[in-house]
Amino acid sequence: MTTPTRRELANAIRFLAIDAVQAANSGHPGMPMGMADIAEVLWNDYLSHNPGNPGWFNRDRFILSNGHGSMLQYALLHLTGYDVSIDDLRSFRQLESKTPGHPENFMTPGIETTTGPLGQGFANAVGLALAEKLLAQRFNRDGHAIVDHRTWVFMGDGCLMEGISHEAASLAATWGLHKLVAFWDDNKISIDGNTDGWFTDDTPARFEAYGWNVVRDVDGQDAASIKAGIERALTSTDRPTLICCRTTIGFGSPAKAGKESSHGSPLGKDEVAATRAALGWTAGPFEIPQPIADAWRAVDRGAARESQWEQAFEAYRTAHPQEAAELARRIHGELPAGFVEAADAYIAKLQSEGPVIASRKASQMAIETFAPLLPELIGGSADLAHSNLTLWKGSKSVATDDPNANYIYFGVREFAMGAICNGLELHSGFIPYDATFLVFSDYARNAVRMSALMGAHVIHVYTHDSIGLGEDGPTHQPVEHLASLRYIPHNDVWRPCDAVESAVAWKQAIVRHDGPSCLVFSRQNLAHQQRSALQVADIERGGYVLKDSVGTPEIILISTGSEVGLAMDAAAKLGDGVRVVSMPCTEIFDRQPADYRESVLPNAVRRRVAIEAGTADYWFKYVGLDGAVIGMHGFGASAPAEQLFPYFGFTVERVVEAVLALR
Amino acid sequence: MTTPTRRELANAIRFLAIDAVQAANSGHPGMPMGMADIAEVLWNDYLSHNPGNPGWFNRDRFILSNGHGSMLQYALLHLTGYDVSIDDLRSFRQLESKTPGHPENFMTPGIETTTGPLGQGFANAVGLALAEKLLAQRFNRDGHAIVDHRTWVFMGDGCLMEGISHEAASLAATWGLHKLVAFWDDNKISIDGNTDGWFTDDTPARFEAYGWNVVRDVDGQDAASIKAGIERALTSTDRPTLICCRTTIGFGSPAKAGKESSHGSPLGKDEVAATRAALGWTAGPFEIPQPIADAWRAVDRGAARESQWEQAFEAYRTAHPQEAAELARRIHGELPAGFVEAADAYIAKLQSEGPVIASRKASQMAIETFAPLLPELIGGSADLAHSNLTLWKGSKSVATDDPNANYIYFGVREFAMGAICNGLELHSGFIPYDATFLVFSDYARNAVRMSALMGAHVIHVYTHDSIGLGEDGPTHQPVEHLASLRYIPHNDVWRPCDAVESAVAWKQAIVRHDGPSCLVFSRQNLAHQQRSALQVADIERGGYVLKDSVGTPEIILISTGSEVGLAMDAAAKLGDGVRVVSMPCTEIFDRQPADYRESVLPNAVRRRVAIEAGTADYWFKYVGLDGAVIGMHGFGASAPAEQLFPYFGFTVERVVEAVLALR
Repeated sequence: MTTPTRRELANAIRFLAIDAVQAANSGHPGMPMGMADIAEVLWNDYLSHNPGNPGWFNRDRFILSNGHGSMLQYALLHLTGYDVSIDDLRSFRQLESKTPGHPENFMTPGIETTTGPLGQGFANAVGLALAEKLLAQRFNRDGHAIVDHRTWVFMGDGCLMEGISHEAASLAATWGLHKLVAFWDDNKISIDGNTDGWFTDDTPARFEAYGWNVVRDVDGQDAASIKAGIERALTSTDRPTLICCRTTIGFGSPAKAGKESSHGSPLGKDEVAATRAALGWTAGPFEIPQPIADAWRAVDRGAARESQWEQAFEAYRTAHPQEAAELARRIHGELPAGFVEAADAYIAKLQSEGPVIASRKASQMAIETFAPLLPELIGGSADLAHSNLTLWKGSKSVATDDPNANYIYFGVREFAMGAICNGLELHSGFIPYDATFLVFSDYARNAVRMSALMGAHVIHVYTHDSIGLGEDGPTHQPVEHLASLRYIPHNDVWRPCDAVESAVAWKQAIVRHDGPSCLVFSRQNLAHQQRSALQVADIERGGYVLKDSVGTPEIILISTGSEVGLAMDAAAKLGDGVRVVSMPCTEIFDRQPADYRESVLPNAVRRRVAIEAGTADYWFKYVGLDGAVIGMHGFGASAPAEQLFPYFGFTVERVVEAVLALR
Repeated sequence: MTTPTRRELANAIRFLAIDAVQAANSGHPGMPMGMADIAEVLWNDYLSHNPGNPGWFNRDRFILSNGHGSMLQYALLHLTGYDVSIDDLRSFRQLESKTPGHPENFMTPGIETTTGPLGQGFANAVGLALAEKLLAQRFNRDGHAIVDHRTWVFMGDGCLMEGISHEAASLAATWGLHKLVAFWDDNKISIDGNTDGWFTDDTPARFEAYGWNVVRDVDGQDAASIKAGIERALTSTDRPTLICCRTTIGFGSPAKAGKESSHGSPLGKDEVAATRAALGWTAGPFEIPQPIADAWRAVDRGAARESQWEQAFEAYRTAHPQEAAELARRIHGELPAGFVEAADAYIAKLQSEGPVIASRKASQMAIETFAPLLPELIGGSADLAHSNLTLWKGSKSVATDDPNANYIYFGVREFAMGAICNGLELHSGFIPYDATFLVFSDYARNAVRMSALMGAHVIHVYTHDSIGLGEDGPTHQPVEHLASLRYIPHNDVWRPCDAVESAVAWKQAIVRHDGPSCLVFSRQNLAHQQRSALQVADIERGGYVLKDSVGTPEIILISTGSEVGLAMDAAAKLGDGVRVVSMPCTEIFDRQPADYRESVLPNAVRRRVAIEAGTADYWFKYVGLDGAVIGMHGFGASAPAEQLFPYFGFTVERVVEAVLALR
C-alpha cells in the first residue's frame, strides 16, 4: 500500500465500527458503513478542528444527529488523533468507557453534544450555528473574522421523520444560517425496514419549502460527488444547506448491505469476514495499516490551525482589547465582575419594597435587571412573549444583524426551542433561556432532559404554573408537570412564592453553571412575604423556615409558589405551634447538609401538611405516611382562577381541617 | 331582512364569539372572526351531521385544531341546533359550563376531540380519517357504502409551526387519506405578532412535498372562493387536501383586524360597538335575528340525513347480517362475547406454565393471543416493531387495502403516533395501541396526557423500561418516566413482573373503557413468580401480596417489574418476617377500598423498602419517612444490563442492608 485511496481511508471507519460493534456484541454498524465516505471527505478535506484541543473555540462543530451510528464518530476521533485510543474503541459500550452506545459530550473528548434521541442533534446544530452567527455579528471587526466556523450535521431518515426536524429546519432558514450544512443519509432504510411504507416525503422539496439551499442527488459513496456537493454548500451566503446523499446502509456487506439487518445489530462473525473480503480489508480487528493511520492523523494540521487562529486573536486583542476581553470572558463562561453583588442588592431592595405582583412579572423584572449586566443572556418564547413576559427593554431579535441581537422569536415550536437552547449553550458564549406555558413543557420534555443529562447551563422559563391560569382550562393547566420536571435528574425546578424568591431563582439559575434550571412562575398576583436578611439568604438553600413556631413546632406546613400565602394565612389561624416552610426548590433543599434539612424539617415532627397546586402525591416524600397533602388529584377546569382555587380545595379552611385531622 | 346573505350568516358566528369573549372578559375573538366565512360555507353547504344526535356514527368529523377559537365551534353548535343554548354561550369559560375555554369533548355535545395544545387536533383528525378509511375497507360492500364520511379540520399558523404537523401530514399522505380536508387559516398573525419574523415556510410547497392535494390562494373571506376550494378538495381520490385560505384575523374590527391584539383578548366595549357598526350588525349581544337563526338551523336536515343512513344500514343488515352485527358491536365499543373468559384462561395457563421471558415478549404473546379475538385492536410502533415486539401473525399494514388492515408503521414519529391513536379511538370502532421505548414517551407526552384528559381508551406500550435496556445508554434509559406517567391523572401505568402480570396488564388495558393505560415492559428476561389462583385474581387490583410473612409482617418489600425477582430473593435471605408486595399498577391499587389497601400495606408496619429501577422519590408515598427506597437517583449509563443493575445498587445485598438499617 502506498498512498491510501479515499475508499481505503473510509474503510478504516467501516472496520473500526464493524469490529467494535462485533466486540461489544451490540450497536449499529450499518450507518457508519454507509456514511463513511461522506465522513472521510468532510473530515479530511473540510473540517476545521484541532484534535489536540477539542475545546478550541473557533473549531467547526460536527454533530451526529443520527447518534446510534456513534462508532462513526469514535472512529473519526481516534483516527484524527483525539484522546480516544484503540483500547477505548475496544471498550465500546462498556461501563464508564469513553465510547458509550450513543455519543455523550460528557464522556468523550471531541463530542459536541449528546445525541441519540432522534432529531435533537439537528436542532442542537441549529443552535450552535445561531451562536456562531450572533457571536460573529457581535465581535468580528473589519479584518478580524475572529468568530468564523461552520456547523456540520449528519442526519438520517429518523431525524427527518421527527417533528422537531420541521421546527428546527424552519427556524434555521428564517435566520439565514448559511454556515450550517446538513448531510442527509438517504438510505431508504429505518429499523422497521424499507421506508417506502412510512416515509414518502419529498425531502428535498420540503427543505426548499423552508428556504434551504438543497443539493440534490449526491452519491454518498463517491468522494468526488460528495466533494462537489460540499463545494456547492460553501457557496451559500444566505441559506443553510441540505446535502442529499444517496447511500447504502451497511455498505460493503455482501449479505446485509441495503438491509435493515445491518442497522442495529452486529454483522456476525461470518459476515464480518465476508465484508473484509468484499472490501479488500486485510487488517485484523482494531488494526489500522500505518499508511492509512498516517493519512488520517490531523494533530499537526489541527495545531497549526489553532495556532494561526491564536495569532489572529492576538491581532484582534491588540486592535480591539475590550472586545477581546469580553469575548474571552464569555467563552470561558465567567459572569461579569460584580454580578452576584448586584443581584443580591436587587433582591434586598425587592425584600424591602415588597411588590405584590405575579411571579411572571417578577421574572420579567429580574430579566430587566440582570440582562443589561449579562450580554450573554439570550432567549425568547414559543410565541407567548407577552404571556411569559420574556421581552425586556434591551430585546433585539436574532433575525436582525444587530450586534446585540439577543431575543429569539421561536414561534410555536417548544421542542426545537429547548434543543436549540441546548445548542446555544454548548457552543459557549451564551446563557440561553426559553419560555412557554408550564403545561407545554410536555412538548419540549426530552430537550429539558437532555439539558440535564449534559449538564447544560440552560434556563427554562415556564409561566402559568397551575390552575391559576384560569379560563383556558385543563388543556392549559399544569398538574403533574412540577413533580415530573423535578424528577428529571440534575434539573433544578424553582417555584417562587413572591417577587423576592423569583429574583433569587433567576440569580441561582444564572449562577448555576453545571446544569439547567426550570423557573416556574404564576399568572396571578402573589402576596409579598416578610423575611429577615438571614431568611433572604436561605432562599438559596431551596427550602427554609418562612414563619417559625414559638418553641418546637407542633405542625409544619410546607408549601411553594402561590400556595405559600395560603399556608401563611392558615398558620395565622392555627396559632403559635405552626411552622411554615417555603420550599421553592426541592432539589436544592435535598442537596443541603443533613443538619440544615433537620433544622427545617425536624424528623420528630410528623404533623405535616404540604400545600401545592400540583400533583399531591409528590409531597409524601416530605410529609410521610402520617402527614397530609392539599394538592391536585385530577385535571383542572375552565373558569376564572379565583373560583378554581376554592373549587379544588385550596382554602384556609381546608388546610386547617387537614391539620386538625392529623393524628 | 329577507333571506340572509352568506356574510350575515357568518356574522352570526362573529358576534356570538365577540360577545361571549367580551362577557367572559377572556378568550380569543380574532380567529372566529377570521374563519367565520369558511365555517359558514363548510357547515351550511357540506358538513354531513345531525345536531339532534352528535353521536351519529356516519357523521362527518369536524376538528378545530386551533382550539383557542373555541367560540367559533360553540357558535356553530348553537346555531345549527346542538344542545348548546344561548345561556351556555353566555357561560363561556365559566365553571362547569358546556363552553370551556378550549373545546373539550367530555363537556360539550358535538365536540369530537379536545383541542388547544396546538397541532394535536390536526393529528387527531388524521387518526379519525384513518379510522374511516379502514372501517370502510373492512365493512363496505358493493352498493353499501355504510361507512362513508369526511374529516374536516381547521388549523392555524401555530398548528403548522408545531413539529407534530410534520409527522401527521406525512403519514396522512402516505396513507392516501383523501377524505381528510384541512383548512389553513393563513392570517400571518400569531400571538407574538406578524409571523414574518418566525414563520417563513412556503406551506403549500411543504404540503405538496408530502404528497398532499394543495388548493392555493383561496380568499377565506369570500364564500364563492371557499366553495370553489372545497369543490377541488372533493375531487381528490388519493390524497388529503390542504385548502390555503387567506384570512384577516379579527375580520370586521376597524381597529384590530389583521392585528395580534384581536388574537387572545376581548375586543373591548368600544371596539365591539365599532365592529357592529362596521359589519352592520344591529342585533344585541347574544341575539340572533330570526331569519338568520332559521337559515342556520340544521336539525331537520340532520335528522333526515341520519334517517336516510339508518335505512341504508337496514338494507346492509339484510344483505350482510354478520358484518352489520360486527360493525354495530365495534361502534358501541363492546368486547366480543367470551373475551374476558378467554383472557382469564390464557392467564391461568401462563401461571401454570411459568415461562421465563422478557415482559416485552410476554406482551407480544398477549397480543398474539388477544388480537385474533379483537379485530378492533389496531396499532403499531414508531419504527421499533422488532424491539417493542408489536407485530403479530395477523398484522397487516394500514398502508394496504386489506380489509383486515390493523398494523401501523408509524415511522419515527412518537408524538403524532399518540395523537393519531387518540383520533382512532375517538372515531369509535377501534382500540388503538402504540409503542416506543419508554424513554421516548417523552416525545409523545402531551398526547398521552390528552388520552387521559379525554378518557380515551388507548393503550400505550413502552418497552425497554429501565437501565435494563443496557448498552444504548442514558439517552435511551428511562428513569423518571414511570413516576411521571403515573402522575398524569387518570392514566393507568402497568409495570408487570412476569409473563402472567403482563397478560393481566394487557387484559385490563383492553377491558378499561374510560381511559388510557401505559404498559411498560422489560427488554430482559424476568423470573416467573408462583401464585395461587387468588393471587392471580388480585393482580387486577394493582398491588397484592406476592409472598407473605409468617404472622404479622415485620418488614414489607414493595416492588414492580424486573425488581420483583430481586425483592423475592432478598426476602428469602431476610426470613419469615418479610412480606413482598408486587405493585404492577399503583393507580389501580390506590383506587381499591381502604380495607384492601390496609390488608396489603398495614399502616402499623413501617419497616418498608420499595425497590424499582426508576425515580426513587416516587416511592416515599408508600414507604413514608421511616422507610427506604432502592431506586435511581440520577441517569443511567451505557453498559451491558447485567453490569448496570449492581452498579446502580440493585442487589440482594443492598436490599438486605437497607432493611437492616431501618429503625
